[in-house]
Amino acid sequence: MVKTLKPEEDAYGQEIWAYYQGREVSEVVERDDGYIDPYASGPKAYFAEFEDWPSHHRLAMDFVRGSVLDIGCGAGRHSLFLQKKGLDVLGIDNSPLAIEVSKLRGLKKARVMSIEDIKFKSGSFDTIVMMGNNFGLFGSYEKARKLLEKFHEMTSRNARLVAETVDPYKTDNPDHLRYHRHNKERGRMGGQVRIRIRFRKYVSRWFDYLLVSKEEMKKILRGTGWEINQFIDSDNAQYIAIIERMS
Amino acid sequence: MVKTLKPEEDAYGQEIWAYYQGREVSEVVERDDGYIDPYASGPKAYFAEFEDWPSHHRLAMDFVRGSVLDIGCGAGRHSLFLQKKGLDVLGIDNSPLAIEVSKLRGLKKARVMSIEDIKFKSGSFDTIVMMGNNFGLFGSYEKARKLLEKFHEMTSRNARLVAETVDPYKTDNPDHLRYHRHNKERGRMGGQVRIRIRFRKYVSRWFDYLLVSKEEMKKILRGTGWEINQFIDSDNAQYIAIIERMS
Repeated sequence: MVKTLKPEEDAYGQEIWAYYQGREVSEVVERDDGYIDPYASGPKAYFAEFEDWPSHHRLAMDFVRGSVLDIGCGAGRHSLFLQKKGLDVLGIDNSPLAIEVSKLRGLKKARVMSIEDIKFKSGSFDTIVMMGNNFGLFGSYEKARKLLEKFHEMTSRNARLVAETVDPYKTDNPDHLRYHRHNKERGRMGGQVRIRIRFRKYVSRWFDYLLVSKEEMKKILRGTGWEINQFIDSDNAQYIAIIERMS
Repeated sequence: MVKTLKPEEDAYGQEIWAYYQGREVSEVVERDDGYIDPYASGPKAYFAEFEDWPSHHRLAMDFVRGSVLDIGCGAGRHSLFLQKKGLDVLGIDNSPLAIEVSKLRGLKKARVMSIEDIKFKSGSFDTIVMMGNNFGLFGSYEKARKLLEKFHEMTSRNARLVAETVDPYKTDNPDHLRYHRHNKERGRMGGQVRIRIRFRKYVSRWFDYLLVSKEEMKKILRGTGWEINQFIDSDNAQYIAIIERMS
């Protein structure tokens, strides 16, 4: 089932589009417990050049090789860097405006596609990139495992995932700690945050975004044909996992 | 009728309190048409020292004299500056936490009081300060005129208002322009924005905040016993009016 995003729901894309047009832009994330969080550096960061990336992003790029799928490519910052390095990159995003901007910025292969609708033939990719906390697009424990199996089918023998997330438990914010507890009580992962993006009058649909600790990530991977090779830490709760395909 | 603010409604005060405690803080303003606007510099600006104020704020302070009422004093930045200059200042705010912080920062006279509940005996003040766009607290044309008459009664013969606002029409944002039109269609002033403050899980009540052009301000003042002496412009749509009491 392909979910078509209506323009007024594409808050994320509208924000990227406005920033691309040179306008002052800021993103707000609203969680389903009413918590509101402006992500001031958001739009600017989505357009940052390699030399301005945080060091764990820069380090992670060394692990990307071959034919690359960049899931949730946004304005294309990672895809464009990798394309310039000579890799064969396809950027996908469920936001039509984000894909439009990626193309305008020079990304040759960019396609509107949500993670749920991914379908490629076996051996299509050597690396799957999920930067910008996009491990979160897995959404839930079950969905992550199902998608990891699908990723196994469509990648080459020695494929890799380069995926970023946030350890949700590295916080002392009482609202977050309460939210994690409430999530667990209702049978969700602690960091399975139900959020929507707001930008000016644009409001995205509610969606689940999955933030996991390293231990939780290991549990998710168990038996899916993927295993952690190493973690690249940042100076905050974000980290990147280099995940290798087994056999 | 005194409206008591419940702690969970005091989003503005909670934000000031959190910033005072050294936490990372940002304010979000939500308008009743769904427009969302993070005010990133908000909390920091509320605590800024004189030398970091925008120049129109610094210039306006030269017009403040005698016994001063600071309406919507927030974290007390203007009140504290004026108190240090030797003026007799009373800061009021409808936020209990803002008043708490003002007191902790050294403001001697600070009281929880909303603009609707202001009541002082005649000749109590020589200057009324409404900085930080707090002309907006007048809320509407009618309420502004009623309060201006009350202010006339409780001030001395040569009293002044030093009041800041934003010219709402100095924008090319189509959402704002549409909102102004819609306001006028329903008999409100163009810049009579119905908003609420959100900070983390705290949500204020909806309230009307009045942004006016210079011409609109003049119309509001007509026949109230107050008149413009001069305007102090900023480098954006904000401006300060120096308003003198007639007779």
